[in-house]
Amino acid sequence: MPLDIPDVVIDRLPVYYRLLCDLHATGIAVVSSQELGDALGITPAQIRKDLSYFGRFGKQGRGYAVARLTEELRQILGLDRRWRVVLIGVGRLGTAIASYRGFDPQGFDIVAIYDANPEAVGTQLGGLTVHPAELLARDLDERPADIGIVAVPADAAQDVIDTLVRAGVHAILNYAPIAAHVPPHVQVRQIDPVLALQGMTYHLRRYGADASSRA
Amino acid sequence: MPLDIPDVVIDRLPVYYRLLCDLHATGIAVVSSQELGDALGITPAQIRKDLSYFGRFGKQGRGYAVARLTEELRQILGLDRRWRVVLIGVGRLGTAIASYRGFDPQGFDIVAIYDANPEAVGTQLGGLTVHPAELLARDLDERPADIGIVAVPADAAQDVIDTLVRAGVHAILNYAPIAAHVPPHVQVRQIDPVLALQGMTYHLRRYGADASSRA
Repeated sequence: MPLDIPDVVIDRLPVYYRLLCDLHATGIAVVSSQELGDALGITPAQIRKDLSYFGRFGKQGRGYAVARLTEELRQILGLDRRWRVVLIGVGRLGTAIASYRGFDPQGFDIVAIYDANPEAVGTQLGGLTVHPAELLARDLDERPADIGIVAVPADAAQDVIDTLVRAGVHAILNYAPIAAHVPPHVQVRQIDPVLALQGMTYHLRRYGADASSRA
Repeated sequence: MPLDIPDVVIDRLPVYYRLLCDLHATGIAVVSSQELGDALGITPAQIRKDLSYFGRFGKQGRGYAVARLTEELRQILGLDRRWRVVLIGVGRLGTAIASYRGFDPQGFDIVAIYDANPEAVGTQLGGLTVHPAELLARDLDERPADIGIVAVPADAAQDVIDTLVRAGVHAILNYAPIAAHVPPHVQVRQIDPVLALQGMTYHLRRYGADASSRA
């Protein structure tokens, strides 16, 4: 497998995978890059280029075999196994995360939940008991996890992330509004609605200016 | 202002802006692309290239003036005004969103909340009364909004998005796990933890393979 695939390409693969799963479930056997592009708002050329990093999936003019491409992406993305996830933080957001039903069908098992607040510790959430945050490092030492989901306040987040990294967790989903510092071998994805909104206001502003300049 | 700036660049600007605000708040007047890069895990060359789309902010070897660059990014991103946001869906996630304190300081005002569930309608959330979803189109006609946040179940999401788009909303933050269909002039950002996790398992799998091959 090639090693230097841009992160923007990797981050589009789950989007392709989800659509292909839907197509497969509805009995569609073959799909063109044009049809994939129309469904996703991505140009067919970009889709063909993205997928070409991983080999020759499509035949010129014949489209992609949905079942085969789905299975290939499943293996490429490492979704042909289950992943152990720990969740830290059970405020409103952490509670919503613990209750989210989308993780399990995709192979992500939340195996332990932590919080620093003594009132939260011992409560039940998604079938699990909330543990004290100070046990995180010890627990990970005994029962390693693959992924940490960080849903603590901003001022506590880097400490939690440091603990996860020291305990060998190499993938962190960070909901705290901070730019996490991690070593190069650790993956971080930031879930931050404000950053997403700010990426759109740039375009809104341009659109607004265009609209008034037409007036 | 240049028109064809890649979306990946636009989406990094809010990250720069947040860090610069923090630096400004702590009294730092000048910062180098190297320092910005170290703090964000982005190469200094990338940062210089991203910012060069918008003009000449830095002096060779002297770094960026934090106050000026912060203010420029604020204007570029359209954060020098307030934006009207409607939220649709008040399940666990929608409730967490309505209670999130990060929107207001950045200029985003949630001005109305909707839900299709009669039991949720009329309840209070973040100082607002939840309105019936069927009033969304009529209300937007009377009081336009800039941004819609969609936190409804997957099978209801495209309908809500269509309603928003018909009512002239040009920016949608979509928490539902679907690939939203919108016209080209409408911006969509997807907040989806599963897609984010799947973008990381690709790397975990590769790392795992490397580790076992070293064993």
